[in-house]
Amino acid sequence: MTAFAMTDLLGFAAATLTTASFLPQAWLTFRTRDVSGISLGMYSVFTLGIALWLAYGIAIGDAPIIVANLVTLTLAASILAMKVAYSARDRRRG
Amino acid sequence: MTAFAMTDLLGFAAATLTTASFLPQAWLTFRTRDVSGISLGMYSVFTLGIALWLAYGIAIGDAPIIVANLVTLTLAASILAMKVAYSARDRRRG
Repeated sequence: MTAFAMTDLLGFAAATLTTASFLPQAWLTFRTRDVSGISLGMYSVFTLGIALWLAYGIAIGDAPIIVANLVTLTLAASILAMKVAYSARDRRRG
Repeated sequence: MTAFAMTDLLGFAAATLTTASFLPQAWLTFRTRDVSGISLGMYSVFTLGIALWLAYGIAIGDAPIIVANLVTLTLAASILAMKVAYSARDRRRG
């Protein structure tokens, strides 16, 4: 195995972990509807940032960047949508 | 401005947003100590993933990847540490 393949593997492992990490958060939020401790600022800025990463991947034609950020964008946007929806519900309940 | 510089700018904007996004989450968690809706699984896997991104940046000698992931690692590890500490406190309080 060359040094090149080793660093590629490191990059793939890093991308897999950072992308997959949003799955337990999306599932926890979906299951508990507990969004008071989740930052609207974080998920607004993060979702926009991931959309730009996706655009960057498309611009340079890099399939791993496109795929990883499509998955992360779906999960981050879901968490953001739940944050907005459940915060509105919490405000109505007072 | 060349097409190359344009895609570079897109990548820098993406990196800045995804890195900066963890600042409002770290601040919200520090201020409110409200961690019940924050996923331990997410921050464990995410922090490990960012550490691997940092190792990848060092391996390929890419300064922007190193700097962005050093900042994100600091913020994500802080949120993870607060999640662990405040969850333990919540359990003691019952």
